[in-house]
Amino acid sequence: MKYTQITIKDIAKKIGVSPSTVSRALKDHPDISEKTRKEIQELAKELHYRPNSIALSLRQNKSNVIGVIVPQLVHHFFSQVISGIEDIVSKNKYNIIICQSNENYEREIQNIQTMITSHVAGILISRTKETCDDEHFKTVLDIGIPMVFFDRTYKELDTDKVIIDDIGAAYLATEHLIKAGCKRIVHFKGPDNLHISRKRLEGYRRALEVHNLKFDESLVILCDNLEDAMKTTQNLIDSNNLPDGIFAVNDNAAIGALKTLKRNNIAIPQQVAIVGFSNELISSITTPSLTTIEQNGYEIGKRAAELILKRINSKKEYPSQTIIVPTSLIKRESS
Amino acid sequence: MKYTQITIKDIAKKIGVSPSTVSRALKDHPDISEKTRKEIQELAKELHYRPNSIALSLRQNKSNVIGVIVPQLVHHFFSQVISGIEDIVSKNKYNIIICQSNENYEREIQNIQTMITSHVAGILISRTKETCDDEHFKTVLDIGIPMVFFDRTYKELDTDKVIIDDIGAAYLATEHLIKAGCKRIVHFKGPDNLHISRKRLEGYRRALEVHNLKFDESLVILCDNLEDAMKTTQNLIDSNNLPDGIFAVNDNAAIGALKTLKRNNIAIPQQVAIVGFSNELISSITTPSLTTIEQNGYEIGKRAAELILKRINSKKEYPSQTIIVPTSLIKRESS
Repeated sequence: MKYTQITIKDIAKKIGVSPSTVSRALKDHPDISEKTRKEIQELAKELHYRPNSIALSLRQNKSNVIGVIVPQLVHHFFSQVISGIEDIVSKNKYNIIICQSNENYEREIQNIQTMITSHVAGILISRTKETCDDEHFKTVLDIGIPMVFFDRTYKELDTDKVIIDDIGAAYLATEHLIKAGCKRIVHFKGPDNLHISRKRLEGYRRALEVHNLKFDESLVILCDNLEDAMKTTQNLIDSNNLPDGIFAVNDNAAIGALKTLKRNNIAIPQQVAIVGFSNELISSITTPSLTTIEQNGYEIGKRAAELILKRINSKKEYPSQTIIVPTSLIKRESS
Repeated sequence: MKYTQITIKDIAKKIGVSPSTVSRALKDHPDISEKTRKEIQELAKELHYRPNSIALSLRQNKSNVIGVIVPQLVHHFFSQVISGIEDIVSKNKYNIIICQSNENYEREIQNIQTMITSHVAGILISRTKETCDDEHFKTVLDIGIPMVFFDRTYKELDTDKVIIDDIGAAYLATEHLIKAGCKRIVHFKGPDNLHISRKRLEGYRRALEVHNLKFDESLVILCDNLEDAMKTTQNLIDSNNLPDGIFAVNDNAAIGALKTLKRNNIAIPQQVAIVGFSNELISSITTPSLTTIEQNGYEIGKRAAELILKRINSKKEYPSQTIIVPTSLIKRESS
């Protein structure tokens, strides 16, 4: 695993010219004769000289790498966020490395440790559903590595954040169902320890209130993935307890409902209308296609990357910033 | 970005005990009095002492991180590969960092550089469609970092590889269409510079030959994504040139065909049967659901991780290995 980093000085020594000659030859400077230029460039290639930021960062111990930690790569939302991050950081000559916590708190701690040992210049993170403690985040901040949270934040920590207006988005989704004529709307909610779950539930509740529909605790069911949604929906059908609308905390849960209703020959949206959340790739491909909330993952990634670069390159301290990225309702066939 | 790594010695010095006392106190050893244990553990916490492999690897400059480079994270296949890798490496106390090349050759070179500067212990890579040169791979090998290719390899390089039997899988898919009664099967192929594209085409060709169907060059069309497949399929319809079967190089292209046929009220599989490749998540959700090839990404990831760990931990050189992971046909409604 050991290796030596070839420098301009090494090349200069081997050929017997000055380092500045090597530097200019590598940049095709016209002051250097073609013969010398060729000789230097060939030696540089042979020795695997890396002329870019790599050599510099190895010597200066300054990293041009930003670490990104996401719960699960399989979600289209997170790949969109990563694309947004990549587009901004690569323009600024930074690269990213990605770790996946797999919704596992222990794995998240390991990821943080990996990022620290990899000497990243900053960390962008969306935390797991399980995370119940912020010791590992505090370690990062104490070490002096800037950190920006996106989507799933840790409220108690004073860091930069990029979030969406979850309450507003959930309000929009629920109001859409109400306006479509739904009177008895079930909410498939996420786990209570996630801010975004609590906020989406709050948006659902507010929309009901504003439109004079009673909030009924029994219509709020913990159910945030495909399998659970299939079981829960089947239970609702079997117990003759079918609602006329379902607002799910994410698209996977919404699709679980959709598949189960279809299998039971229940008409969507005529008998039950469905709205999801996050506009996963599959949501436009299902039959019927799924009405959902566009979270603008790409925009979230861009803004998070801008915040971390600003923090990395700032010589002064400044107060934490929170950016709220707007969302929109994508109306499709399921509502 | 600078930080100091707290060691057992630092804690011992501050408290005025021996390092071995600290070490035992941190392991809750009964020889150490409860008072001392508590004092040491509290100080360790306060100083953010990291007792695990991190401190060790920082001192020894030995990395327990393996780098993974994939073309695009959005493909379910690659997230499955990553899950397989994670399950094996985490059992062996390694972590992974992931870079995405975005099918961009320049980005792949940057990724390689990032992995080198991050001092990874090994690299697992599936190359981009664009990669036309192996200089950056050779740099890795020259430095002495073990590298294993999976799925998309670089044939000329002598490294460990994990691949699937693409010819066999494509043969299976095409034969399945022939046995379902198809006589005029279009193949949506991938770019020629990718081995897997050439091999899948070869499997298609062999199946036709074995079953006495003529290989017709005009039925092989370069088309490996959703958008192109939608256009190509519409062209086939508009020019009254509809085949009775389509074998696509990947699921996205197959789904592009499926959507376009449906939109034109062409019955699947009665008028046109379709088989995809790679069993993306969406392929089971489309209507009709898609017959496809299961590539066993999870298994590929596991085997690749085993190969790299073996290489990292071996004190001797040994010849390169190639592992071929079996595939299977998943029969669904589209055929």
